[in-house]
Parts: sequence; C-alpha cells; structure tokens
Amino acid sequence: MSDKLWGGRFTAKAAEWVDEFGASIHFDQKMAAEDIEGSIAHAKMLGKQGIISTEESEKIAAGLKIINEELIAGKIEFDVKNEDIHMNIESLLTEKIGPVAGKLHTARSRNDQVATDFHLWVKHRLPHVLESLTELQEELLTLATTHAGTIMSGYTHLQHAQPITYGHYLLAYFEMFQRDYERFEFNQKHTDILPLGAAALAGTTFPIDREFVASELGFDSIYHNSLDAVSDRDFALEFLSNAAILMMHLSRMAEELILWSTYEFNYIELSDDFSTGSSIMPQKKNADFAELVRGKTGRSYGALMGLLTTMKSLPLAYNKDMQEDKEQVFDMMDTVLASVKVFTGMLSGLTVHKERMLATTQDDFSNATELADYLATKGVPFREAHAIVGQLVLTGIQSKTPLQKMALSDLQAVAPQIEEDIYDKLQSETAVNRRTSLGGTAVENVKKEIVRNKKILEAR
Amino acid sequence: MSDKLWGGRFTAKAAEWVDEFGASIHFDQKMAAEDIEGSIAHAKMLGKQGIISTEESEKIAAGLKIINEELIAGKIEFDVKNEDIHMNIESLLTEKIGPVAGKLHTARSRNDQVATDFHLWVKHRLPHVLESLTELQEELLTLATTHAGTIMSGYTHLQHAQPITYGHYLLAYFEMFQRDYERFEFNQKHTDILPLGAAALAGTTFPIDREFVASELGFDSIYHNSLDAVSDRDFALEFLSNAAILMMHLSRMAEELILWSTYEFNYIELSDDFSTGSSIMPQKKNADFAELVRGKTGRSYGALMGLLTTMKSLPLAYNKDMQEDKEQVFDMMDTVLASVKVFTGMLSGLTVHKERMLATTQDDFSNATELADYLATKGVPFREAHAIVGQLVLTGIQSKTPLQKMALSDLQAVAPQIEEDIYDKLQSETAVNRRTSLGGTAVENVKKEIVRNKKILEAR
Amino acid sequence: MSDKLWGGRFTAKAAEWVDEFGASIHFDQKMAAEDIEGSIAHAKMLGKQGIISTEESEKIAAGLKIINEELIAGKIEFDVKNEDIHMNIESLLTEKIGPVAGKLHTARSRNDQVATDFHLWVKHRLPHVLESLTELQEELLTLATTHAGTIMSGYTHLQHAQPITYGHYLLAYFEMFQRDYERFEFNQKHTDILPLGAAALAGTTFPIDREFVASELGFDSIYHNSLDAVSDRDFALEFLSNAAILMMHLSRMAEELILWSTYEFNYIELSDDFSTGSSIMPQKKNADFAELVRGKTGRSYGALMGLLTTMKSLPLAYNKDMQEDKEQVFDMMDTVLASVKVFTGMLSGLTVHKERMLATTQDDFSNATELADYLATKGVPFREAHAIVGQLVLTGIQSKTPLQKMALSDLQAVAPQIEEDIYDKLQSETAVNRRTSLGGTAVENVKKEIVRNKKILEAR
Amino acid sequence: MSDKLWGGRFTAKAAEWVDEFGASIHFDQKMAAEDIEGSIAHAKMLGKQGIISTEESEKIAAGLKIINEELIAGKIEFDVKNEDIHMNIESLLTEKIGPVAGKLHTARSRNDQVATDFHLWVKHRLPHVLESLTELQEELLTLATTHAGTIMSGYTHLQHAQPITYGHYLLAYFEMFQRDYERFEFNQKHTDILPLGAAALAGTTFPIDREFVASELGFDSIYHNSLDAVSDRDFALEFLSNAAILMMHLSRMAEELILWSTYEFNYIELSDDFSTGSSIMPQKKNADFAELVRGKTGRSYGALMGLLTTMKSLPLAYNKDMQEDKEQVFDMMDTVLASVKVFTGMLSGLTVHKERMLATTQDDFSNATELADYLATKGVPFREAHAIVGQLVLTGIQSKTPLQKMALSDLQAVAPQIEEDIYDKLQSETAVNRRTSLGGTAVENVKKEIVRNKKILEAR
Repeated sequence: MSDKLWGGRFTAKAAEWVDEFGASIHFDQKMAAEDIEGSIAHAKMLGKQGIISTEESEKIAAGLKIINEELIAGKIEFDVKNEDIHMNIESLLTEKIGPVAGKLHTARSRNDQVATDFHLWVKHRLPHVLESLTELQEELLTLATTHAGTIMSGYTHLQHAQPITYGHYLLAYFEMFQRDYERFEFNQKHTDILPLGAAALAGTTFPIDREFVASELGFDSIYHNSLDAVSDRDFALEFLSNAAILMMHLSRMAEELILWSTYEFNYIELSDDFSTGSSIMPQKKNADFAELVRGKTGRSYGALMGLLTTMKSLPLAYNKDMQEDKEQVFDMMDTVLASVKVFTGMLSGLTVHKERMLATTQDDFSNATELADYLATKGVPFREAHAIVGQLVLTGIQSKTPLQKMALSDLQAVAPQIEEDIYDKLQSETAVNRRTSLGGTAVENVKKEIVRNKKILEAR
Repeated sequence: MSDKLWGGRFTAKAAEWVDEFGASIHFDQKMAAEDIEGSIAHAKMLGKQGIISTEESEKIAAGLKIINEELIAGKIEFDVKNEDIHMNIESLLTEKIGPVAGKLHTARSRNDQVATDFHLWVKHRLPHVLESLTELQEELLTLATTHAGTIMSGYTHLQHAQPITYGHYLLAYFEMFQRDYERFEFNQKHTDILPLGAAALAGTTFPIDREFVASELGFDSIYHNSLDAVSDRDFALEFLSNAAILMMHLSRMAEELILWSTYEFNYIELSDDFSTGSSIMPQKKNADFAELVRGKTGRSYGALMGLLTTMKSLPLAYNKDMQEDKEQVFDMMDTVLASVKVFTGMLSGLTVHKERMLATTQDDFSNATELADYLATKGVPFREAHAIVGQLVLTGIQSKTPLQKMALSDLQAVAPQIEEDIYDKLQSETAVNRRTSLGGTAVENVKKEIVRNKKILEAR
Repeated sequence: MSDKLWGGRFTAKAAEWVDEFGASIHFDQKMAAEDIEGSIAHAKMLGKQGIISTEESEKIAAGLKIINEELIAGKIEFDVKNEDIHMNIESLLTEKIGPVAGKLHTARSRNDQVATDFHLWVKHRLPHVLESLTELQEELLTLATTHAGTIMSGYTHLQHAQPITYGHYLLAYFEMFQRDYERFEFNQKHTDILPLGAAALAGTTFPIDREFVASELGFDSIYHNSLDAVSDRDFALEFLSNAAILMMHLSRMAEELILWSTYEFNYIELSDDFSTGSSIMPQKKNADFAELVRGKTGRSYGALMGLLTTMKSLPLAYNKDMQEDKEQVFDMMDTVLASVKVFTGMLSGLTVHKERMLATTQDDFSNATELADYLATKGVPFREAHAIVGQLVLTGIQSKTPLQKMALSDLQAVAPQIEEDIYDKLQSETAVNRRTSLGGTAVENVKKEIVRNKKILEAR
Repeated sequence: MSDKLWGGRFTAKAAEWVDEFGASIHFDQKMAAEDIEGSIAHAKMLGKQGIISTEESEKIAAGLKIINEELIAGKIEFDVKNEDIHMNIESLLTEKIGPVAGKLHTARSRNDQVATDFHLWVKHRLPHVLESLTELQEELLTLATTHAGTIMSGYTHLQHAQPITYGHYLLAYFEMFQRDYERFEFNQKHTDILPLGAAALAGTTFPIDREFVASELGFDSIYHNSLDAVSDRDFALEFLSNAAILMMHLSRMAEELILWSTYEFNYIELSDDFSTGSSIMPQKKNADFAELVRGKTGRSYGALMGLLTTMKSLPLAYNKDMQEDKEQVFDMMDTVLASVKVFTGMLSGLTVHKERMLATTQDDFSNATELADYLATKGVPFREAHAIVGQLVLTGIQSKTPLQKMALSDLQAVAPQIEEDIYDKLQSETAVNRRTSLGGTAVENVKKEIVRNKKILEAR
C-alpha cells in the first residue's frame, strides 16, 4: 500500500520525481494561512452541527491555531511528500493532536477545500489592489494640480497635434485607473462566493451549515451548485483579465515616461530612486523601472492566456489541470501591486521641465487647427478651411515660419477672411484655454475635473 | 496636391495598393448605420448651438437620412479611395447636398467620430448578447426540469466519482452563463460613454453641447477627458475578455456533448439539425457544431490577445494602430451570438438516454463515498474510513463485485461497524437524494434551484 | 432524406442559419485553385492505376480544367448550400460532366483533401514570403551603403549610449530578417508533405500511387502515417509563429520610424506615399503605415494563439474544430506580405536628416565610454574607471560642458592618467571608427558586412 | 553616491523594495555556471590579447573557478543588493582576489554578458530536450511493436470511423514528436551564436578576439552585428514556440490517455506510479499526470505570448523590458523536460485492454466504408455508393444489426452488386489489413514503419 493519504486502493509506489512533478506544495504554501482559516471555520461548523463532538471541534481548531502561529513565526517546513498545502497542514495537525485530526476532513473534499483557499486568497488581496490604485490616482491628482496650467504638445500618431496641459494629460490616466478600479471592484462579486460544502462535486450527506461557514469567513454569498463550486475559475480569469488591462494602461504611461526622459524629448527627469545606470556607460540614466513594468505587460498577457487555455474544454467537475490556476494568479498579484506602487513612486519624484514642454509648442504648427476653426466660424466649410490651412502650413514649413509669425497680408492673400484677432488665437495658451468643451483641455476644465475626481476618491 | 480629403499638405500621390493597405472601409462599413446616426446627432447639435445655421443642420440631417435609407435598401457601394466609412459617408453626403456637407465635420475629428461609432456599435449589440444568454439559460432550465431526477455519473478527472442528476449538471452551466450575463451587463457601463466632442484629442473651441448629443444617441454618460475619450478601448477589451470566458464555458459543454455522443458513452444523441455526416463514412453522425464552437474558442482567445497586444505601449492619444480594434470585435460579436444560439438549439433537440446514464452508476464503485461517510458517522475518523473503503473497492474491482452486492459478513470482516442499513445507502438514488446540503445534487435541491433561477430570469 | 451529399443517414433538414454557421465556403474558396489542382492529380492517378477508367479520368480532369478557367475568369459563384470548396467544386463538376464526377471521390476523403489543399496553398505562397524578405533585405543593404558612415546616437534604454552609424543600425535589421528568412525556409520542410491518400484517417483499400500524386503536385515528401496526415497542422502553426516573430521585428523598426519622425527626434522624414494627414490638423504628417504594421503585430500574435488553442487537446484524427485553421493563416499571409512590402517601400522613399543625427552626438556624453576605456588601457581597473567618468559626467551635466570641451587640467585633476590624446578619442567619428571588433560599428566593418550580406542574397 | 557598482552618477539611494523589484538575482542565479563559464573565457581572451596581463587573466580565471566549485558545493549565497547574477559573481570575485577583479569587465558590458549567459544556458539544455524526445519516441516504437496488430476503433469527430491498429495510432505520435525534434534541432542554429564582444551595443575599441571566445565556449557562430547581438531574443522565442507546439501534441495524447482510462472507454489502465487517488472517493484512479501535462499546455502558450508581447515595439538595442525573457524560458525548460519524461513513463507502464479495443469494432458500423469501397470497385460512382450504404446503416442502427450480420439477400435488395465475398471484407481485421496504401493502417505497413523509424532514431 502506498503511503499517500489517499493510497488505499493503490498497489505500487511512485518514483520520487513523479511525485514532485505532481506536487503543488512549492507554490500553494502561499495559501497556508487561508487553508488554516478555512479549516478552523469548517471544524467549528462540524462541532456546532454535531457532526463531530464539540470537544473534537475545539481540539482541531486549537491545533490549527498553533500551526498558524508557528507558520507566522517561520517555524514550519513543508514536505513535498505531502503533495499540497492541505495534506501538509493535516499532517502537521495529526502530529499535534493525534488521529482526531482525521475528522477534520469529514464532509469536505480537497476539491472544495482548494477552491475555498483560492477564493479566500484572492478575496483578501483585492482590497490591496484597490488601495494601491487609489494611491496612484491620488498621486495623479496631486501632480495634475501642480500642472493644471503646464502647457505641452498633445500628440496623435506621436506627432504634435494641438497644445494641451500636462494636468489634462495626467487626468486621462486617472480615468483609465478609475475603470481599472471599477473592474477590480466588480471582480470581488465573483470572488466573494464560498465553495466549501460542495465536497468532491455533489454536495454531502452530512448536515452541514454553509451559511455559518460563509459568515465565519466573511463570504458575501455561497455557490448554489456543487459542480460549479469546485470547477469555477471565473474569478481568477476576471482577475487576470483586469490585471492585463491595467498593465496595458501602465505600459502606455511607461512608454511615455521613457520617451519623455530621452535626450530628444527632455520633458521630464525621473528621480535617482527610479533610475539606474549602466555598467559600461556612466552618463546613462535609464528609466529602468518604467521599462520593467512595460516588459511585465507580457507576463500579464501570458498569465491570462495561460489560464484561459488550461480551462478550455475541461469536462466537469474538477480536473488536475486546474492545479495550474494558482501560480499565475499569485505572480500577477505581486506584479500588479508592485507595478502600481512603482508608478506612484515614479510620479511622486518626477521633475517636470515646464519650459521645454512649452517651448516645443511655439514652432510646431500645432495651432493649425485654431486657424481652421477660425475660418470655419467665419463660414468657410470645414473641409475647405482645412485645405487652406494645409497650404499655409506647407509654406510655413518650407520657410520655417510658424503661422503666428506670418504677416497678416500673407495670411489674407490665401484667406481674406483672416483678421488681426487671429494672432491671439494662435497662441498655445489661448488655444488651450478656449477648449472649454466638456472634457476639453482648458485650464479651468482641468481644475474642475480635479475637484470632481477628488470627490470620487473621497467617497471610497 | 493629393486627392485625399486631408491631402492639403501633401505633394505626392500614394500607390493604390498602399492606400488599400491603409484603408478600413472593407470592414468599418459595418458601422455605417452608427456613423450616420452619430452624424445626425452631431449636425442637430451644431444647428441647435448656432455653430452652423438651422437650415444647414437640417439639410445635412436630411441628406444623411436619405443615405441611410439607401444603405438599408442595399443601394450604396463604398469606395476604397475614400479610405474609411466616415469619409465615404461624407463623400456621399457631398454628392447629395453639395459643399455644405463640409460643415458637418465642424467641431469634431475622425478620432472622436470613430470612437463614437464603435461605442454605438457595441452598445447596440450587447443587449442581443444578453438576450441570447437568457434564451440559453431558459433552455437549460427547461431541460433541467425534465431531468431533475435523471441519475447519471458525476465525474472528476473524467472518472466516475459520485452519482448526480443530469438536472444538477445542467444547473452548473446555468451558473456559468449567469456570471457571463453579469459580465456583459457590467461591460455596458464602460461602453455606454459618449466620446464625441473630444475632437482630435483636446476638445474643441466651438460651443458644443455634449449632453445633447449623448441624449440624442441614448448614451448613459460622457467621457470627461478628451485624451481618454479618443484613446480608450477598454470597453472593447472587456467585451473580448467576456467573450473569451463565455467561449471557454461553451467549450467545456461542447467537450461533454461530443464525449457523451460517442459510441462508448452513448448518453445523448444530438438531433440531425446539429449533426453532420461523413463524405466517406456513412455511419458517422458527428457533433460538428459542438466541435466548431469548441474550435472557435481559439478564435476568441486570439482576438483578446490581439487587441491587448495592439494597445500595449501606445502613447496618447490616437494612433493608427487602433484601427486594428474593430475586426476582431466584429468577428467575436458574430461568433458569440451564433455560438450561443447553436447551443440553445442543440440542447433543445437533445435526446437523452436516461437508462444508459443510470446503468453506468450500478457497477462503478461511485458509491464508495457513501460507505466512507457511513463509517465516519459511526465515529471512524474520515481518513481511516477512507483507507478501509479503499481496500474494499480494491477487492471489489478484482472480484467484479460492486459494494452493494458484497455480503454483509464480508463487509463486517473489514469494518465491524457496518450494519444492514448500509445497502439502502449504497443505492445511487439514495446517494443522490441524501445530498441535500445547499448546492448539493438531491432532486429536491435541483427543483428548488430551478424555481430560484426562473425568478432570476423573470426579473430581467 | 437530407439534400446534403453526405446526408444518406439523416432524417431531418437543418435550419439554414445552422448550415451557414457550419459552412466554410465563405473563406475556403480561397483554396479553389488548389482544390482543383489536387483533384486533377488525384483523377490522373486513379486513371493510371486503373481504379477508374482512363476515359473517366480524362473526362474528370478536363471538366476540372474548365472550372478552373471559369474561376480565373471570375465566372464562378459558390453556393453556401454546398458547405465548402470541395463540395462546391464537385457539384460544379457534376453539372459539367454528369454522374461520373462522383467517381472523383474514390479513394479519398474530405479529411485528406482539405489537408492537401491547405498544404498546397501555403506551399505556393511561402516562396513569396521569402522573395518579399529578400527585397526588404536588399533595400536595407542599399540604404546601409548610402549611410555606412552616417553617424547617429546608438541607444540603450532609449538613452544615448554610444555613437554608431545608421548603416550599422540598418544591418541589425538585416540580421533579424535573415533569421526570419531561415525560419520560413525551414517552414517549407513541414509544409511540403503530401497528405492525399490518407483518406479519412486510415489509408485506403484502393491500389493508389501516392508517389505519383506527390510528383504531379510537386510535393517533396509524403506523410507516412495516415492519422497524422489528416490531423497535423504543425506547418500552419510554424507559419503563424514565424509570422509573429517577423511582425515583432517589424514592430520594432516601426516604433523607431515613428519615433524618429517626431518633431523631437527629427531624424527622418517618410515620403508622402507612406504618410497620411489629419482630418482636423492639417500640419500633421503621420507615419500611419508604420503604425498600422505595428498594430497588426497584435493580429499576428492573436492568430498564433488562436490556432494553438484550437489544436489543444484534440483527440485523433480529424475534428471539425480544425476548420478554424484556415482563416487566420489566410489573413496572416496577406498581412505578412503587405507589411514587408510596406516596409520596403517606406525605406526606399526615406529622407534621412544626417546633420541632425550627427548633431545629437555632440553634447550628449555618449563618449563617456571612450574615456572609461581610455583609463582602462592606462591600467585603471574598469570598475574604477567607470566611477571616475561617472563623476566627470555629473559635473559636465551640471555645467553643461561636454567631456570633449573640458580643460585638460580639469580632467587631470580627477584622473591624472589623462593626456592630450584624449580629445581625439572623444570625437564621435573616432569613437565609431575605433570599434573595429567583429560586429562593431566602425565604418570599415559596416562596409565589409554589406559585402558579406550581398553574397548571402546573391546565393539565394 | 549610491553604493551600486554603476552608481557614480547618481545622488540618491533607492528604497530597498524598489531595488528588489528591479533585481533579477532571484531567478538569474540559475545561470550562475554559465556566467562563470563565459567570464573565464573572456578573461582568458583578455590575457591572450594583452588587454590585461597574463597574470591578471590567470588570477581572475582561478578566482572564478573557485567560485564555481563553491557554487556546486552549495556554499554560495547570493545577495539581492548586487541585483543580478553578473554583479553577484563579480562581487564574490572581488572578495576573493581584490580590485583586479574590476578588470574582468574590460571590453564587455552586461548587455552582451547577459545575452551570452542566456544563449549558453539554452544551448546546454537543448540536447536534453532532444534526448528526452528520443526516449519518448523509442518508447512509442516499443509499444507499437507490441501492438502492431492490436485492432481498435479509429476515430474522427470522436466517432468510430474505421478500424485501425493501436500500433498505427502510436506511430502518428511518433511523427509529431519527430517534427518536434526537428524544430528543436533547428532551434540550435539561432541559439548557438556568441553575443560576447558586442559590448553595450556598438562593439568595443579593445582588440578582442571573438573567435577565440567562441571556440572556448563551443559556439558554432558569432553575431555579426553588435546591436543585434544584444537585442536578439529570437532563439528564446523559437524555443517557446517549439515548446508550445510540443505541449499541444502532448495535450492531444493526454486527452486520449484520460479518455481511454474512463469507465466508458476502458481501453487502457495507467500504472499506479502515474495515477493518484481521491481524498474523498477511494474508488478513483485518476490520470492526474496526463491531466497536469494537459493543463501545463496553458503555461506554455502563456510563456510564448508573454515574451512575444514583451519584445513588441522595443527600440534597439537593449531595454530593461528584456529582463522578462528568462523566467518563462527557465520554467518552460523544466516543464518540457518533465512532461516528456512523464509521458515516457506513462507509456512504459501502460496496460492495454486489447479485447475491449477489438470488441468495440464489432457492432459500430465502422466497416461501412468497406462496403462503399466495395461498391465503388464494382463501378458504382462513389457518391452513389455512399448514399446506398448510408441507407443500410440507418436500417442497421434501427434493427441493431451490424452490416456483417445482414443477410446477403437483404444487402442485394438494396445493392444487387453485392456478393458473398463481402462478408470477409466487412471483418475489422480484413479492413485493417487491406489498407496497405502508403501510410495506411495495415499491420504490414505498421511493421515496416517501425523499422524505418528505428533507423531514424539510430542515425541520431
């Protein structure tokens, strides 16, 4: 007979490396606290319901609490022979309290136990994701407040398009992280469901009380179908999908932080804390942390694809394939929390070169739209106005003369509707401040949005 | 000068194939109705705000309505020279109403226009996804009602584990599609936001009224940051992620439909409508549609991966890369709607072999848990009970004797706690019906769940 | 009885939309020429082997040739009722030559037929991919020849690192496309295998001659296992993987073309043929085609992920899931060919701002390594040299004095080993030309590499 | 001044957690042996070329060898403060031999160093992948030899299609792994290239000898472009792509091992070594290892997508994003080696239920093709023959009479061409053995293929 706990039926012993291949203790030990927490709640319930005696229940709970303390104190060593965290904890419990430990597994199975641990693990950490996003959003508002009026080039296709303010730009990311926040918030709904009590797949014949367990563990709701309870990994997929979208947002800002730190752009300088040097080129100051987060976007997409693939075509209910669900989620939780924190730090220590930002808006023809809009308000159909301005820009580029430096007569030669008042409209500050349409870049808009967004954060 | 509408600045003409490579009209014409709808609302607003005259506004709106009618009547041919749907519609409008058409583009840009069209397109179709899911869920409840008491093997690791009812199994999928429903419902929140008015990236100097446009188009909210408005594709990513998870669920059921239709399982027979034959093997009846949906899971994962990749590291605001956002969403909308409909159809025409299902639970030792639980209630620690039953099962397999056919004396020889009442407990019907724990497979549970689930559907 | 060709066994007719869902004619008609080509070879073989009469064989072949001519002339309309291209062609053949058409399907199945068509389709097009890569590589060598001595900043972390030549930079891409070429070349090995003759899955009882068919169709080898022949899609996966890596390379160059076209970098200007303007901002000249190719990288990753997912866990041999193999391959073939061509075109029309490139190397401290290496040759351990130069750079940045403009006495104050000869070494041209190590950026190296690479292309 | 080795230019110290986020020592320590190996070759070359003195060179090499021995003896503890494996080794070397250690980094950079380590790491392990595949292929041939004549149902769409032999089925996987082998072999070409000597990105001014280093390290070729040398990760992507395709193949076989181990199929039984039991259901014998490998397919697809994403759009040359290249490759190397080994083990211990396999071919109408082919040889056009057999099968299913048990008169009533000799042809053994076409399932074919395949393995 095999020495595995489930080995009654088996006649041969597996080679050690095969066991190690199948074992999960090297990663699922991260759920040790959750496994103990779930088991204590289960033991209490078994006692309350008379499925085991009160004495047994208390003995089990007490033993588990001691293991938990030893765990916190770093005194526990897990053993790969016990395969997974559940078997390891049970084995430790048996050492502590003897054969009564075997009663803990009454009316449950590893299938609902592992699902419960995993739900709990994610459930405990989603609030940290939310908090870290709030901190990042707060940092964005702080920076946007300072730079509500800092004028810079707005880009489309990475070409200067129209002047905007840096504050306005920062608020665009506020909005992205706001949607991320809302997605992780929604993610809680499908995480906060208790699987325990589903047993192996079909429920149990013991008179268990799942509402009690849910209440003990702080779960909001309970799986209403036992097959679904043990085979659902939607909450993990939602998390990985949300993480991938968040990392995509960070990769966009990372791209700009890197770009803006270049010799050529020179818009910003990252603090030394968030830069590194080169082993061979001492003049370098690299935006390593922005690059690393951008690179980790790959990891996040891979994690999502990984679990989606694993779940594809799996028949109900539990299959061993599902053991592959945890590592990627564990890794992405670390990745997301650290990446957001790094961004908060980078923004907090950022030096902004306001003069450089402004200067690039002076000779870049990014006020061309102003002229086109001006002509449109004079009754020129927009498409015609566009063509007229296009010609002027072409002339300007060839003669290196920005629109605002062209003589009025030259302008009028092409478009007689143009008058002296055009020169004010061509200033980048004017261009910015006239964009008062809802969501536009005008400084007053940016300030209003900061107030509105602060209220959103305060309401959390 | 180039003959492109935006060609003022350009001095050379592009080769035709290059233009075709850059054009999007071959796919974005699917948004023609939305483009017209958005333009009518924009024209109305321009008139209302006095940005163009009421007469111009009405002329434009009337022209657009005629184009829409011609579109519905199939009379419109789009031209790749006009690149995209927006330019095509504007060009058609110019043909109809002359140069005043050029005023329509006042205070907007293709960047906010295409975002608006795309939002509208998804917004119009999400309700169909929700309806199709409701229909599938209704079909599941109908089938579950018929089979609330149909006993079959429940599987883990594709091994017989414990008997369940087919109704219970169907309700597991009800729960999955319920979560899908909730995800697509949440998807509406980030879809139902109006980008129009963000113009190219920074808002506009014209005194536009975005609330009016939102109201005309039925949008629930409005982007509060113009950069975000033109560069956000979160709603599309959410859709693709939701679609991928839904397709994963369908792939699981597809796997089982295929498996259960085999010679070996023979649990079900698909109707001829949802099977196909072989060109060379006339005896075949293939679950082609289930296989095809399972295969399309790949397409759905690919679409999600595709757009995530496209969006990675894009600087703000609009970049041409984003033109790659639509085809995969269009394709996945068709795929999701058709796949769900196919499943509803397959379930509706299903023949269920109840006797075969029941028969496989008679000699498969899937009642071993009953015996272990029985011993546990007699005070044997579960782990010990497990080992005892394991030995009995091993003997049983070797002698081809199911537990319920072993003599009481033989059972007692291994475990003296066993008494006559064990035989009833070993019946699969008893095993099913004793699983009355919340979410368990007992017939009474299944029936209660059907009632509860019907209420959920009715409340929609 | 169903009116499907394989419908003998079936008793009910499928709803039209279900048929359309299952049909593939809307995309597999792209393989019409290959289907006919394969069928002609099969018919010839059947005649040669006496499986059908010579007369029948000739009649079938003649009929197929006429269909092929009509196809080329655009006279053929396919019908979704005939599901796929194979059934459509056979149906057309029956119209042309009567019931003898039914003999064509002797000793084959749709399973080996579709695999043959698909192999042929890819086999015919891989040479075009190779040619297009050769053209792109040629363009790179042409441009590198012109710019063998054009000095620019070399970047790591997008920071100026050390001066290089633009020619050297271009040759880095030559190497990448060389590996792409080798991968697509290798791809031919697993594409150029004939599946026909595997029949449905097990081979056939007819005395067929597969070598003859292979020879007729120009196949290099023949599948030696019938199950493998009909269920292998490795060649398609290899193609999609190769395409993904190639698109990744193009995305890197695209990123740089976009970046270098910015106001801030201003290193290059794309020709008007490969730029587009803005509907609202007439001054814009966007690198739209580079952006679009970069965006299509997403599509390529998605296609690979899609087919990998579809193939996961499929039992042998053919399953309908595999119908999902073609669309992504068809699309990626178009994407790859067009993207490579676009790059060849963009490079061919590129304007390079040599003075601007050079100018950025004058005050950027990218000669710091020269000083460190100089110190190292004087016996200072590299790590110490690195620290010394680091300090000088810091001083230089603060006082805005490049190293080459610092007084010798100031340099010697920090490192007494420095002598007058340092000033020449600090020139970017010197820095470039002293890097003569194999693979280094020295102009003489670049010229040698161009010669070497030209020979590689000539040897094709 | 920062205490980082590259910290000369920096004025502030980074917070500890930021450093840890940026550090790679927790995973790149796996390349410690390769880092030392590369450094020894580099030091030797520096001495040989007179860049450092022979004495210095020998001192450095001797120091590195001691570190290597300590590493093997498990005496080395790496320190996260030293960021990565390169800095750690250098720091240890300084401890051992003093400041001369600083000379080791002459004429190289971390950029070419890390690339060299990574190339070496993969280069050292690809042969193990090849060996493990050979072992798996050998096991397949052994099993195929035993089962060359073991008749079973061949499946398409998971429906019984035509009888085949189990040996034939196994050889299909032999072919898949053969292609995998060829891909990993090709993978060596782009792995076996030396990057060292590219320095940071542009080559070096020191008179290095890269051919010598290549020869010392056993590299087949040398990067001819320094920018490419430090930024190329194609070899890693090829590895991940090959791994993904291999894992896909394993997932297909895993699916079948799981399926065939079910109660319903009952074709095979896995040895106890490669099965596990259930904590709650003692009768279960789960194909856990096949499931786990199937699940790990997700991990492999994710790893490929991850690195492809990371590399997308990265400008030349090195960027910190690339630090994300190793973990997934390390993990996939372990995964691939273990997964292949598990399969070799599972096949080696497999019990095959030959009688059950054969029995399922007796009443499943999988001989329908035989009858259709029979009619075709009698001159009935195949499509007509197909329809006739379809009708007979329908009748047979309804009356539960296999074709071979129908009366001759009944057969002739439908098709008068049928004669007495049909009954032999309808035997599954006959059906198998008449499929002698190249690649067909006939026993003689299978035996010939085994011989041919053995030669392929012997020639390695």
